[in-house]
Amino acid sequence: MFEEIVNSIKPIEEDLIKKAFERIDNLTKPLGSLGRLEEISAKLFAINDGKMPPCFKKAVIVFAADHGITKQGVSPYPKDVTYQMVYNFLRGGAAINVFARQSRADVFVVDVGVDYDFPLVKCLIIKKVGYGTKDFSIEPAMSLEEARKSIIAGMEMGEEVHKRGYNLIGTGDMGIGNTSASSAIMSVITEESLEKLVGRGAGLDDNGLIKKREIIDRAIKLHQPKKDDALDILSKVGGFEIGAIAGLILYCAANRIPVVVDGFISSAAFLLAYLIKKEVKDYTFFAHRSNEKGHIVFFDFINEKPILDLDMRLGEGTGSAIVFHIIEASAKMYLEMATFDSANVSRNTL
Amino acid sequence: MFEEIVNSIKPIEEDLIKKAFERIDNLTKPLGSLGRLEEISAKLFAINDGKMPPCFKKAVIVFAADHGITKQGVSPYPKDVTYQMVYNFLRGGAAINVFARQSRADVFVVDVGVDYDFPLVKCLIIKKVGYGTKDFSIEPAMSLEEARKSIIAGMEMGEEVHKRGYNLIGTGDMGIGNTSASSAIMSVITEESLEKLVGRGAGLDDNGLIKKREIIDRAIKLHQPKKDDALDILSKVGGFEIGAIAGLILYCAANRIPVVVDGFISSAAFLLAYLIKKEVKDYTFFAHRSNEKGHIVFFDFINEKPILDLDMRLGEGTGSAIVFHIIEASAKMYLEMATFDSANVSRNTL
Repeated sequence: MFEEIVNSIKPIEEDLIKKAFERIDNLTKPLGSLGRLEEISAKLFAINDGKMPPCFKKAVIVFAADHGITKQGVSPYPKDVTYQMVYNFLRGGAAINVFARQSRADVFVVDVGVDYDFPLVKCLIIKKVGYGTKDFSIEPAMSLEEARKSIIAGMEMGEEVHKRGYNLIGTGDMGIGNTSASSAIMSVITEESLEKLVGRGAGLDDNGLIKKREIIDRAIKLHQPKKDDALDILSKVGGFEIGAIAGLILYCAANRIPVVVDGFISSAAFLLAYLIKKEVKDYTFFAHRSNEKGHIVFFDFINEKPILDLDMRLGEGTGSAIVFHIIEASAKMYLEMATFDSANVSRNTL
Repeated sequence: MFEEIVNSIKPIEEDLIKKAFERIDNLTKPLGSLGRLEEISAKLFAINDGKMPPCFKKAVIVFAADHGITKQGVSPYPKDVTYQMVYNFLRGGAAINVFARQSRADVFVVDVGVDYDFPLVKCLIIKKVGYGTKDFSIEPAMSLEEARKSIIAGMEMGEEVHKRGYNLIGTGDMGIGNTSASSAIMSVITEESLEKLVGRGAGLDDNGLIKKREIIDRAIKLHQPKKDDALDILSKVGGFEIGAIAGLILYCAANRIPVVVDGFISSAAFLLAYLIKKEVKDYTFFAHRSNEKGHIVFFDFINEKPILDLDMRLGEGTGSAIVFHIIEASAKMYLEMATFDSANVSRNTL
């Protein structure tokens, strides 16, 4: 499955972007005056092979997993919050549930590695790769085989929602400790300093932040992940949910489904997918700039701009759910606006 | 009506913001992790006198008017586009119609001064103050009496939608030439240079931009509007729709209705309302940073940050309609998210 999906990812055709603008530039508005909405619209058109979808069936897929690195005190929240939040997702009380209801998106909650045995209930999807990762300050977070399995878990979820007709997918994460893994991944791939990449996560104080940075620094020196090898990096300093998100992104790109990358954790996962196949970028929208420190480095590295900047840093796919509104507005602009000719409006005289 | 409304505007109580955060800080998320959504939520709570509205009935009110200054060639579009776009609004083909449908907001189109006689149709509200303003490069745009009338037209629209139960209002504008009037207003009030405040509007080229700046510069020197007198400024270099938007903002503030200021034109109108009564700011959300050059100066002057930054510069209330989604998400966050206690989620251990 892995190789087949990766090999079928093709770049989007630049001609389709141009074709989209042939219509966009004739809509009743000054040229370019809807700014980023126009860009988003053209990208949607191109991803969908030159057709604008008349509607979107939307899903946010939240992958949850635990992290052994929490033993080192890198988060102000106890590890149990991961499974407790999964219950909160299932009951509909978390931020992602609220925002997804508002944007009429469905939330899929996937256990890819929580250190807890959930009862078998239909609303929770179990694709457990393990009971949390190992403490990567001491040993690799997971085996290469587990790294591969976590990516495939994400690909399988992509396939599942694809079969069910979803055509706009958002990524989401839950995992106490996962900003540590994400910062480590970003540092290896971007070769930027941990000073710039490690942030306060769910709310560390100054001492906690310094300690977190030191722990990650030592771990990277210990494992020396290969900067061009996504599976090596994922296995040494990653997380099961991060691998799964990377897999979901790869699946979406291979199947021309627009995918919205949420925040900091999802961005680390995006970098892994991007290492595997650069063209994933053509199918990806970046929801928002997280308030988590290192996210700026990420956007510089991939040379992209997020759609929103609302000082959010929650994860769960909350940025994805909120940006769905704007992506849909961009599609409706394309589909529903009158043209200068159809509305009998005079054109620019320049 | 004018004085009564202005005098009844009171600042919002800081205690209500604190009270909102008592709940927001107990929701299942790291403290502050929903960033601006939390701020918006608390402001909504305070505007509504310590109660979060369970739902929003939303309106975008688009005021249309013509500008005599167009005779000087300050826009690349002919003046007729104003009335042509009004027809486009009525038929539902303009960007504001599309975005308002998506955010389930109603669009009210108000002729406060278009140089055209529309047929009497129910879907268009006629509150004509005149058939376009005078060319303010030669004479004052309107009389003081007309300035007052245009503000009252906006207040009356506020009253009308208030009576009909709307509780979230967005401002919108249509008027070829109105970036010239808006830049002039902003320059007088902020005392910032026209270099920084005059932009390309609907798409001027370099020569057009230089000419536009010179025309506005000469007009300001000719009329010397008093920088503390909103009616004087409005009458000398303003526009009927700009006065109406200022009136709408004043009405909303007086009646504790949250009002969303759209883009550059609406921001010039906001400045007039703000001159009349500073406390209007407490009831106002700023939808987005327009790509029109001077908008940065505006936000620095009033010391506020817009919610979105999508390189838009269309007006019509398009920014308002799009930001409604985010304002509603903020309210739903407050109302629907579980608390740490209700969801049995462990708290921060710091």
